Amino acid sequence: MHAISEFKKTVEEGIRKLEFPNDPPYLYDPIRYILALEGKRMRPVLVLMSCELFGGDVNKALSPALGLEVFHNFTLMHDDIMDKAPLRRSKATVHTKWNSNVAILSGDTMFVQSCQLMMQAPDSCLRDVMNLFHKTAIEVCEGQQLDMDFEEQQHVTTEAYIEMISFKTAVLLAAALKIGALIAGATASSAEHIYEFGRCIGVAFQLKDDILDVYGDADKFGKLSGGDIIANKKTMLLITALEMVQGADKEELKNWLTNNKSNPAEKVQAVKNIFDKLQVRDIAEKEMVRYFEMAMHHLDAIPVADESKKPLRDFAELLMVREA
Amino acid sequence: MHAISEFKKTVEEGIRKLEFPNDPPYLYDPIRYILALEGKRMRPVLVLMSCELFGGDVNKALSPALGLEVFHNFTLMHDDIMDKAPLRRSKATVHTKWNSNVAILSGDTMFVQSCQLMMQAPDSCLRDVMNLFHKTAIEVCEGQQLDMDFEEQQHVTTEAYIEMISFKTAVLLAAALKIGALIAGATASSAEHIYEFGRCIGVAFQLKDDILDVYGDADKFGKLSGGDIIANKKTMLLITALEMVQGADKEELKNWLTNNKSNPAEKVQAVKNIFDKLQVRDIAEKEMVRYFEMAMHHLDAIPVADESKKPLRDFAELLMVREA
Repeated sequence: MHAISEFKKTVEEGIRKLEFPNDPPYLYDPIRYILALEGKRMRPVLVLMSCELFGGDVNKALSPALGLEVFHNFTLMHDDIMDKAPLRRSKATVHTKWNSNVAILSGDTMFVQSCQLMMQAPDSCLRDVMNLFHKTAIEVCEGQQLDMDFEEQQHVTTEAYIEMISFKTAVLLAAALKIGALIAGATASSAEHIYEFGRCIGVAFQLKDDILDVYGDADKFGKLSGGDIIANKKTMLLITALEMVQGADKEELKNWLTNNKSNPAEKVQAVKNIFDKLQVRDIAEKEMVRYFEMAMHHLDAIPVADESKKPLRDFAELLMVREA
Repeated sequence: MHAISEFKKTVEEGIRKLEFPNDPPYLYDPIRYILALEGKRMRPVLVLMSCELFGGDVNKALSPALGLEVFHNFTLMHDDIMDKAPLRRSKATVHTKWNSNVAILSGDTMFVQSCQLMMQAPDSCLRDVMNLFHKTAIEVCEGQQLDMDFEEQQHVTTEAYIEMISFKTAVLLAAALKIGALIAGATASSAEHIYEFGRCIGVAFQLKDDILDVYGDADKFGKLSGGDIIANKKTMLLITALEMVQGADKEELKNWLTNNKSNPAEKVQAVKNIFDKLQVRDIAEKEMVRYFEMAMHHLDAIPVADESKKPLRDFAELLMVREA
């Protein structure tokens, strides 16, 4: 059985070995740049872990695993344009370092490359893997659109928010695990359980991200602290706060959301104070734990030795206690 | 044997029958919008024609054919953002009618959908079809990048220009024909000849487009007349003119290219006068005919009855004499 760190090493090595042409440089330099940024490599690692859990040959899963990482980075490149994000993993985003056109076209190219890597799945499961990959890719696009739509909407429910993050973030983790299972030849029932494990962990992961944006250490997190607050981003924290807030606090929160000339640091502190008063961090953490536990139930339901599940259980726990 | 018009009807019907969800509307409305714009549907028609030429079952080629049309429209949606194009087929481009973010994300979604349609190729040729599709998609991205790079470069040779349009435009027509051939089970040699036929026709097609922009009827062509001149676009005409122009005309042409405050209609007329003096239209047409003839040699080399090649020959001739 491999440790998470060993799989991560395998993935990093695989990414380093990916070959891209030099010309045209504006097309391929940004691809090399974004893939070299340090990341958790969660999705490819999950493919390999799941493949091993079901007794598959992880060598056969490596290219599709790398394909998911390339796909994920393609979505980051395009999302960062749409979200006007200046930083990604503490470094300049591609559209900032180059420009939007470069980020659009390099992103498109990465998507094709992710398909090429995914097509290296074995014949026995090729159609299943590709169908899941394409279905997931569409859902990720839908999730990003819902996310942008929410920014324009007055009222968003926590249910709608969780559906959105399920699409935008969670289904890709779920697909990573299911692709590993498909390559290993797992049963349909096991493949579904590992998918749902991933989806629930993915939702919990995003809720953790929302919490970290406000309550995390900016240096460790690699993004602007309180960036979501500054951008009025409808996260679990803000949506919960908007549902609960009353009286003078309601007026104050509304003012911070509409006044776009406010001092950023002052705004972060003031909104954080309202969050604290309403204990929204607590509510978000409870919801996170609920999803974490649902994930564990799905993992428990898979008929393989409990010992083999340890790496996935550790991985999930790590995501919940992480500081970045 | 089917007439081009019959295949076009089949394709239009196939596109109408493609089903897209309603939600989120900002994701799917632009897809319905761009696919409903009237177009030549060249790529899918070529898939079907080639499949029939080699005695294949055109029903099996329909979904991949539609996939190529969806892919082509995805590239238009993204190219139009990058090129800041206001019009496409006489209608507002997606990023103009909605906004750039919508055009980025709807385009991404279309790309996935094109993969899903392409995956409906028969098992017998699935990997060959997908490999060609992905290779071509990368080349199309490289072609678009080269096209944008050329706009920043002082000196572009006609050779480099033809390589660029080969990637940006021609390889997709070539791939359409080869995909039809692969689905029909054509020999490797025939598949290569039909690919090269398509590539040469594609180059000739783009040269015709360059000529039409300046010398075509704007109403029929569906784009701004002289739009390429106004935008200083390095077409075959401008590149040839820049290679040949001397003396006072050289100064004048340079002035029109650097003065961005000029009256558009006046600029088009003045640059056109220089083009006429240098007879660049004639040179571009000769190059177009040269590619057309190379295409015909490849078609001739395919060992099927000459009569069966008539639709493809007609199609190629139609592209050369078209006014739009």
